[in-house]
Amino acid sequence: MQIPAKVEIIEVCPRDGFQNVKDFIKTENKIKIIKQLIDSGVKRLEVTSFVSPKWVPQMSDADAVVAEAKKYAKENNVKLIALAPNKKGVELALNSGVDEVSYVLSVSESHNKKNVNKTVEESLNQFAEIAQMKGTASLKLAIGTTFGCPFGEEIKTEKIITTAKRALDEGASEVILADTVGLGNPALVEKIIKDVTQEIDPRNISLHVHDTRGLGLANILTAMVNGIYRFESAAGGLGGCPFAPGASGNVATEDLINMLESMGVKTDIDIQKVKEAVSMIELYVNSPVTSHMSLLL
Amino acid sequence: MQIPAKVEIIEVCPRDGFQNVKDFIKTENKIKIIKQLIDSGVKRLEVTSFVSPKWVPQMSDADAVVAEAKKYAKENNVKLIALAPNKKGVELALNSGVDEVSYVLSVSESHNKKNVNKTVEESLNQFAEIAQMKGTASLKLAIGTTFGCPFGEEIKTEKIITTAKRALDEGASEVILADTVGLGNPALVEKIIKDVTQEIDPRNISLHVHDTRGLGLANILTAMVNGIYRFESAAGGLGGCPFAPGASGNVATEDLINMLESMGVKTDIDIQKVKEAVSMIELYVNSPVTSHMSLLL
Repeated sequence: MQIPAKVEIIEVCPRDGFQNVKDFIKTENKIKIIKQLIDSGVKRLEVTSFVSPKWVPQMSDADAVVAEAKKYAKENNVKLIALAPNKKGVELALNSGVDEVSYVLSVSESHNKKNVNKTVEESLNQFAEIAQMKGTASLKLAIGTTFGCPFGEEIKTEKIITTAKRALDEGASEVILADTVGLGNPALVEKIIKDVTQEIDPRNISLHVHDTRGLGLANILTAMVNGIYRFESAAGGLGGCPFAPGASGNVATEDLINMLESMGVKTDIDIQKVKEAVSMIELYVNSPVTSHMSLLL
Repeated sequence: MQIPAKVEIIEVCPRDGFQNVKDFIKTENKIKIIKQLIDSGVKRLEVTSFVSPKWVPQMSDADAVVAEAKKYAKENNVKLIALAPNKKGVELALNSGVDEVSYVLSVSESHNKKNVNKTVEESLNQFAEIAQMKGTASLKLAIGTTFGCPFGEEIKTEKIITTAKRALDEGASEVILADTVGLGNPALVEKIIKDVTQEIDPRNISLHVHDTRGLGLANILTAMVNGIYRFESAAGGLGGCPFAPGASGNVATEDLINMLESMGVKTDIDIQKVKEAVSMIELYVNSPVTSHMSLLL
């Protein structure tokens, strides 16, 4: 297999992991975990989302989290990322001073409607408006349900490609192909990645997989041997569906690092320090930690 | 990727899963689970091991398990397998009337010494003696630590090949390449499988992986695209190291079926019926079930 010398891991636990945790995690504890993740060597870190506190009370301290994390991030040359599902959120994110904003849509019409009450076309039009106001921040488009829709809607690869192209044409720095509910499998990942990278430069792509069915690492491996070298993961494997207790969320950063480093692929992240962050998560966050490497003695 | 139309899954939970469970599982409950696994469609099933009850009290009912399971297995055209670590165990296994016996050694000298107090050469000599007495049963050689030794001993692929060749020359029907402690990674699996299948017909090989570090499915995927089509797995993901509570054991049969079937690879096993077996395991077996598919609603 063709493997790269190095890949980039983007840590998303403080956003995608924490947003599924019911009990509010004190801002100061979020910051402790964020600092530990920065100490592990990660260079891009998704710290929060700007979303209505009525929907996601856990993210109601988004401004405070960014303000607190910013100084430490700057000292360590780390880019902070926030997610936003709409124009208002993007404005707040940009005002907070994060380095990158991820705007999210689903390429599945039914899922996008349910999630943000828009057609994909409407979301893309909003993305174009947002691109006008991004200033010096990087703007990314997260394309949800790329590898499968929970409502069974068929996802056409052509639609993934046109969506990604439009975002990049509007000034997106990157598109994130997201397996929102962990429905991807290696054969599908290979097919989609092969087709998409015919049209889109892989350097503008990152991959966000969920480990719902245990296929996170196999899917990342498949994307990597097909030329994708940038992956999002969450320390402790947090995230995912709060309706299936114990079911896995994001692929765990420590499991991903172990796979890559054991294969000789550098990540420049210290797995022991990530495991220390996971210990802090176990202390401060009322959520099961489901990773393999954190359970090894 | 090159994927086969169909693969074979050999279920090993009643042996490799149960042998790591401390509390004795009543024989009648073992049989209930074995029958449910047979109902799921599996055609080869490792039901017990013939090993000193002093070492593994859980397997002290090996004879009774085989006797009870045999009739139902025969009615369903299912081959029963037992494992044995020495000549005495093989004799007992053959007398019990199982269809296949797996003799196990480790290709790592230090691990083999620790496990069965023999050099690899001594184990292979014993295998040759055993091959003389196998009668109509199939005799297999499980080659432990193929993908890594827990004591850090370097495993030379040449030694895996000569070990496998000798076993096949002596009359083994199959060699099982076993990742005893889950140290394999996809790059290593690819390298070893490519080298081994240069010399050994892949139809005589099966793969036994542990999911200790979460790489079970990625490793099976890698072996499959390199021509290995026969895999051992355990319902519920039981097995593995009793010293790391919660750490995964064997790759879970239900997770493996989900990966394969979602990729379009047939297994001829009914995942719902395996999940019912897992529910019985949760009822009768004091061991954590760690699979992804069993946690999904």
